[in-house]
Amino acid sequence: MAQTVSMGVAVFRWVDPPDGPAIELLDQTRLPQAEAILRCTDVPSLVEAIRRLAVRGAPLLGIAGAFGVALAAARGDDVAAAAEAISSARPTAVNLGWGTGLALDAYQRALLDGDILAASKRASEAALLQARAIEEADRLACERMAAHGLELVPDGARILTHCNTGALVTAGEGTAFGVVKAAHRTGRLAMLWACETRPLLQGARLTAYEASSAGMPYRVLADSAAASLMAGGQVDLVMVGADRIAADGSVANKVGTYSLAVLARHHRVPFIVVAPMSTVDFCTAEGRAIVIEERSPGEVTELAGQPIAPAGSGAYNPAFDVTPADLVTAIVTERGVVHPVTAGNLRVLGTDG
Amino acid sequence: MAQTVSMGVAVFRWVDPPDGPAIELLDQTRLPQAEAILRCTDVPSLVEAIRRLAVRGAPLLGIAGAFGVALAAARGDDVAAAAEAISSARPTAVNLGWGTGLALDAYQRALLDGDILAASKRASEAALLQARAIEEADRLACERMAAHGLELVPDGARILTHCNTGALVTAGEGTAFGVVKAAHRTGRLAMLWACETRPLLQGARLTAYEASSAGMPYRVLADSAAASLMAGGQVDLVMVGADRIAADGSVANKVGTYSLAVLARHHRVPFIVVAPMSTVDFCTAEGRAIVIEERSPGEVTELAGQPIAPAGSGAYNPAFDVTPADLVTAIVTERGVVHPVTAGNLRVLGTDG
Repeated sequence: MAQTVSMGVAVFRWVDPPDGPAIELLDQTRLPQAEAILRCTDVPSLVEAIRRLAVRGAPLLGIAGAFGVALAAARGDDVAAAAEAISSARPTAVNLGWGTGLALDAYQRALLDGDILAASKRASEAALLQARAIEEADRLACERMAAHGLELVPDGARILTHCNTGALVTAGEGTAFGVVKAAHRTGRLAMLWACETRPLLQGARLTAYEASSAGMPYRVLADSAAASLMAGGQVDLVMVGADRIAADGSVANKVGTYSLAVLARHHRVPFIVVAPMSTVDFCTAEGRAIVIEERSPGEVTELAGQPIAPAGSGAYNPAFDVTPADLVTAIVTERGVVHPVTAGNLRVLGTDG
Repeated sequence: MAQTVSMGVAVFRWVDPPDGPAIELLDQTRLPQAEAILRCTDVPSLVEAIRRLAVRGAPLLGIAGAFGVALAAARGDDVAAAAEAISSARPTAVNLGWGTGLALDAYQRALLDGDILAASKRASEAALLQARAIEEADRLACERMAAHGLELVPDGARILTHCNTGALVTAGEGTAFGVVKAAHRTGRLAMLWACETRPLLQGARLTAYEASSAGMPYRVLADSAAASLMAGGQVDLVMVGADRIAADGSVANKVGTYSLAVLARHHRVPFIVVAPMSTVDFCTAEGRAIVIEERSPGEVTELAGQPIAPAGSGAYNPAFDVTPADLVTAIVTERGVVHPVTAGNLRVLGTDG
């Protein structure tokens, strides 16, 4: 796969030239100014790319983790250690550990089979095949989420979204953004409101970039301006992605999501989460058990290397927040829509496939 | 007056050297990097400083407007035209028109009295006296608001604030920030959470600067992170200022204030507005009648001159939002505390003086 956003630049791809395989990434920290390709030829460089968000977003992290295992296997590295390093690069998005784990399983199962030299080559191929399967499944999941989600979008919809959930973070057109794109294609989208998503501005930088590339009507806003927009009756739906959904239906997603959920409830605006089943973590019983990554204060107190707060200022900088299930109107997955959002309804879908 | 924040730099002062009077301002757009003094020797330069927020904040705008009239009078300009230009520089903060109007009244009353040449000089002095009186009254109002507000602050308080409401915007220690400073002085402040206040970052730049200068415990956060902070039980009070309070008690203040009010209600955190009576506009019956200034999209889509969204991106960029009275726990004024916030209770205080 090499999904593209605009101008044919691949967001993520596995390459295998004569000098050895590598993962090529569109460096998302440099968008929209530059479409720079980052080439990871070993696992430490991939881990670093994940940590600094050059590659990001729950579904894409699942894909990246699996290809990372394939890369370690192809290089003859200690594959289990590589998988451990990758899956612990960031704590909150469940997909990272999930994709990494699936590829490691495929590798280890193949390794048990036959003589060592042949098995090693086979195991390496098995990890790569598994990574490609995850990628293809994610592309299909995006198509299905868009179809299910579209049923919740009225004509003339003004949809507010947060962070970035499009082709930059999936193998397809996106989770929440995939629904928005389907709405635009079918003529139902009147406006996409893109919350800028401080501190790292994924909304202003990345969602606006994807919206602009798709030619849809959109406007950017400061996260704190969403409230008055809702009070003015300018928002019909809030649609966001997820980094981890607990078994009780509570949703960890980019910081600010919970704020929007409270505001949506106050203004009686439906609040819809769009995520593949791979984002649902049935092993985490409830929202409060989700580990929230706290990132560097510098992300808040500096911007583009320039200080915006006085030297020495501390910051509260959680990367995510948790929205309790009772504030979520519906969760759209590739298997269907969970509504109302309860542990039981989520489990039914989880055991359905 | 020449109130200072740190290092003895005056925030606002009238100077009268031999080459003619002027207003000297600490250029707030350049803080905290530089403490640059801007010298306005005529009304157009003052109007420009107000428009681009070099001088800002409701109480200080009242003072600046009055001194602007005094400046026009001292220069022999058309004073009524100057007052009109100043008071229409920004639409939302009621204090700007109020302070300008008071100084213009003082000028015009004095002008009616006696022979033209003497009256002109007297009128000019009257405008300046009125401006100094507004400044002194604001300083006193800050002291009284701090005393009244302090009664609402528990021991070990963790106060969340938005925008900047301190010595940079008043003739004293501030409105909401004045209460915070009193809480710090009396040992009651455990933490000041300063919302960064996008798009112009008055919280990260200015409130953090004042908090740091005062040596109080503080941390900066992205506006959208306030919700999870409240959910985690880390906020005891929200305290903000106001740009205009309608007769029904609804509060226009920096965009994001309404968002915090909804969140505070959801988390049962008291939401307190601190503002002098000059910010109450009894001529505006209700919140929806308040004119909200919409500012340039570039404030959202660019930062420090660098684009953060793709070229051509539009933005929704209201400078203020309106919080209905029923979300406001109390309004602290120099005359006392309005609680519950109703048109009747507000009017009692208004007719009290």
